[in-house]
Amino acid sequence: MTAITYEHIKTCKQTGARLGKVHTPHGSIDTPAFMPVGTSATVKTMSPEELKEMNANIILSNTYHLWLRPGEDIIQEAGGLHQFMNWDGAILTDSGGFQVFSLSDMRDIKEEGVHFRNHLSGEKLFLSPEKAMNIQNALGSDIMMAFDECPPYPASHDYMKASVERTSRWAERCLNAHERPSDQGLFGIIQGGEYEDLRKQSAQDLASLDFPGYAVGGLSVGEPKDVMNRMLAFTTPLLPFDKPRYLMGVGSPDSLIDGAIRGIDMFDCVLPTRIARNGTCMTSNGRLVVRNAKFKRDFSPIDENCDCHVCRHYTRAYIRHLVKCNETFGFRLTTYHNLYFLLNLMKQVRDSIAEDRLGDFREAFFDQYGFNKRNAKNF
Amino acid sequence: MTAITYEHIKTCKQTGARLGKVHTPHGSIDTPAFMPVGTSATVKTMSPEELKEMNANIILSNTYHLWLRPGEDIIQEAGGLHQFMNWDGAILTDSGGFQVFSLSDMRDIKEEGVHFRNHLSGEKLFLSPEKAMNIQNALGSDIMMAFDECPPYPASHDYMKASVERTSRWAERCLNAHERPSDQGLFGIIQGGEYEDLRKQSAQDLASLDFPGYAVGGLSVGEPKDVMNRMLAFTTPLLPFDKPRYLMGVGSPDSLIDGAIRGIDMFDCVLPTRIARNGTCMTSNGRLVVRNAKFKRDFSPIDENCDCHVCRHYTRAYIRHLVKCNETFGFRLTTYHNLYFLLNLMKQVRDSIAEDRLGDFREAFFDQYGFNKRNAKNF
Repeated sequence: MTAITYEHIKTCKQTGARLGKVHTPHGSIDTPAFMPVGTSATVKTMSPEELKEMNANIILSNTYHLWLRPGEDIIQEAGGLHQFMNWDGAILTDSGGFQVFSLSDMRDIKEEGVHFRNHLSGEKLFLSPEKAMNIQNALGSDIMMAFDECPPYPASHDYMKASVERTSRWAERCLNAHERPSDQGLFGIIQGGEYEDLRKQSAQDLASLDFPGYAVGGLSVGEPKDVMNRMLAFTTPLLPFDKPRYLMGVGSPDSLIDGAIRGIDMFDCVLPTRIARNGTCMTSNGRLVVRNAKFKRDFSPIDENCDCHVCRHYTRAYIRHLVKCNETFGFRLTTYHNLYFLLNLMKQVRDSIAEDRLGDFREAFFDQYGFNKRNAKNF
Repeated sequence: MTAITYEHIKTCKQTGARLGKVHTPHGSIDTPAFMPVGTSATVKTMSPEELKEMNANIILSNTYHLWLRPGEDIIQEAGGLHQFMNWDGAILTDSGGFQVFSLSDMRDIKEEGVHFRNHLSGEKLFLSPEKAMNIQNALGSDIMMAFDECPPYPASHDYMKASVERTSRWAERCLNAHERPSDQGLFGIIQGGEYEDLRKQSAQDLASLDFPGYAVGGLSVGEPKDVMNRMLAFTTPLLPFDKPRYLMGVGSPDSLIDGAIRGIDMFDCVLPTRIARNGTCMTSNGRLVVRNAKFKRDFSPIDENCDCHVCRHYTRAYIRHLVKCNETFGFRLTTYHNLYFLLNLMKQVRDSIAEDRLGDFREAFFDQYGFNKRNAKNF
């Protein structure tokens, strides 16, 4: 009995995108879906009620951060992460691997795992496939991620091949160490960078281990968008059709649409929440830097075409004032709007798949948002 | 036709506290009432919906801050402060005088007004009774405050006498400069420090000008609590019975109760919101510093006796984690709880007046909260 199952509803005749549902112990998720990131057991500035209001029904939280603060033992004692943070929707936790590689210093990658220093205290730490499973089992997330290496872009073929092979060995150790497979579904992560032979090897290795879901990792790490799209188009057909597919770390509107078109079901990214805290909003006409002086007397909403709570009740002039004064409520408003914008975009994507017109939707959206028209044909 | 009226319901037989209603163009306020402070057109970290949920129906906003950022002209263009900040409850604005005296450097007090420097930019500015009215008329608050001088404690009798007399002259200039008396009610401010003769002189001067409400200023500025209580007991009987009475800058639970007992109807203070942002909570058992290590594994609510949204859904351990990580949502939770705590305290005060038992309530509350028992008899 697996905790996570995928239900395929239909494939878009125009693009090949998949419409479906991912069933979890904490509810079902309509896919393709975007998952807001709640790094430290909170989606920065938001309440669980606000996330519900905007129809988020799965969020991502970061194993590495929760392991360091407050510690997975405290979260386990609280009854698990859902109860700790008062969130009854689904939760996906990453493995901590990405943060070990992106945040820590002096890391030493061995077959047994990775030795590194805590980015907060400088303390020596060790993370391994077994430890990553142990922490995620304590957190009690619905979807856990296997501990992998995410090499930087670009990496040599030799380095990447050794890394992919180690990631496959680690994936198997993760499966063996996972103690709650009927409560929590473990996803394997396909690596291989920009090398098709290695993507294929990684996909085959992991598919043979029969995970309840698969992620495509190592993309959106600095490579050009056409490389990402090409690697996705190559990789997703190698994955089992009846399992959910998750593209890690992707959240720009163009890449969400292009990922869905290449058969991806789930996405996450800090982009909407991070730029919100800098006073930048996503709108149907592209990015809007609300802190700019030109919005001082602009009493229109962030996005004329948006029906979110923020756009219905607050003006650019007010939000600009709050952001300029560094007022928390300003960042609440920009964060709420940006998350709503992406969640609503995914709803439009799903509706478009249902009606076999995701290609048309992409054209119109890219035109209005202002993405480069030269890219508008590459699905 | 005056914008603000006071309806007296009853006087507590045990203490002399007043139960009533203050009627404003944006709704009626049950008194005694506590007003959350929204300095820059936002009650820090809170949404208008959250303030409504906790039954706040009047907030205070600061003229000085709004004058500097975003500028009262922008707020007027937006349709006034209510519309600018999406708040349809009542708003009281101060005169800016207190901030001129507490925040600015190199101030020069003249008969015409005060010359000083902007605490943000260093720019030279001038505030006068006429200018303070002009700004508040542009903001469109329901209750405006007269421009006064609030001398520091202690001040000599000579200094205070000259100051009180100037404040009375300024009060008359405010009345003359006020352009929207049927939309906005202007309150006079009684000064006089710890000198009974000057309090009396100030009260008589201002009462003769027939304001729709009166504030007691110059208390809670560093003097001992027994001085504040003595001055209040002396001053409130000098004020017209049929007008609301507002004690400025008071928000500690003991002083709210003791102020009500001395005939005060309205209070404001940054205390609950300011200490919340430092991780300190008000509870029925006294202050609780939730960031303390001892709450790391404490899965009980902030206050076992509180029925607010925060206490019903979140634990000390979770809130401590958020505060330690400097997460906005942690400060939202502590702020919400503290404001709810004070608003709920005022409801208990009103209920106690209705039943002629505010003295008993005070005894029990002071006992449980841990205020010094030696002070428990001085009403």
